[in-house]
Amino acid sequence: MKIKKKGEISPDIMDGGEVSGIKFYPMITAKDGAPNFAMRLFEIGPNGHTPKHTHEWEHEVFIVSGNGHVFKDGKEIPIKKDTFLLVPKGELHQFVAGDEGMNMICVVPNEGQPT
Amino acid sequence: MKIKKKGEISPDIMDGGEVSGIKFYPMITAKDGAPNFAMRLFEIGPNGHTPKHTHEWEHEVFIVSGNGHVFKDGKEIPIKKDTFLLVPKGELHQFVAGDEGMNMICVVPNEGQPT
Repeated sequence: MKIKKKGEISPDIMDGGEVSGIKFYPMITAKDGAPNFAMRLFEIGPNGHTPKHTHEWEHEVFIVSGNGHVFKDGKEIPIKKDTFLLVPKGELHQFVAGDEGMNMICVVPNEGQPT
Repeated sequence: MKIKKKGEISPDIMDGGEVSGIKFYPMITAKDGAPNFAMRLFEIGPNGHTPKHTHEWEHEVFIVSGNGHVFKDGKEIPIKKDTFLLVPKGELHQFVAGDEGMNMICVVPNEGQPT
């Protein structure tokens, strides 16, 4: 069993280009021995966002705290703490934090998490 | 994209035998179209617990709130909000909430989540 605390990890700062205001914590990945999927934490600062993009793997997302919206089919759908999302492979999506910022867990197959 | 809120789901109550005081929310599973893994929320009441058990798939766990301990190699290891755990397949484990209760996200391969 491997136990890791957020405070022990230095996040990657993702800020620039199509990404803004994100601290990224790849908490459980193939490097830790995860055989199938990777669990990552995104801390998105106020009004920060992920890129609007697609990829060939799914996301399973849990909003831990804060609020914001997700870009889906050309619309902005409000999301907040205790929302869960399944983003299928190949679907255009973007996560955008509101004024409070937004933290989320995002799980992907190992192919979606570079090591 | 599928979006689900915790408040829209009636949890399964797990209380009796080797399990105590758990509300279980299978939020994203194969039924929702998840191709590979399932995201579930466990709300464990004060001093509640999962069974002490093993199985042939891994857990990836994020402690959302509260505190408690995990049974690992015969020891009780304290865990709390912002702890992440990888439990490999075949390893004996048990999650036990403290006086505050403990909420956690637990992701398993689809084979570990009956539909």
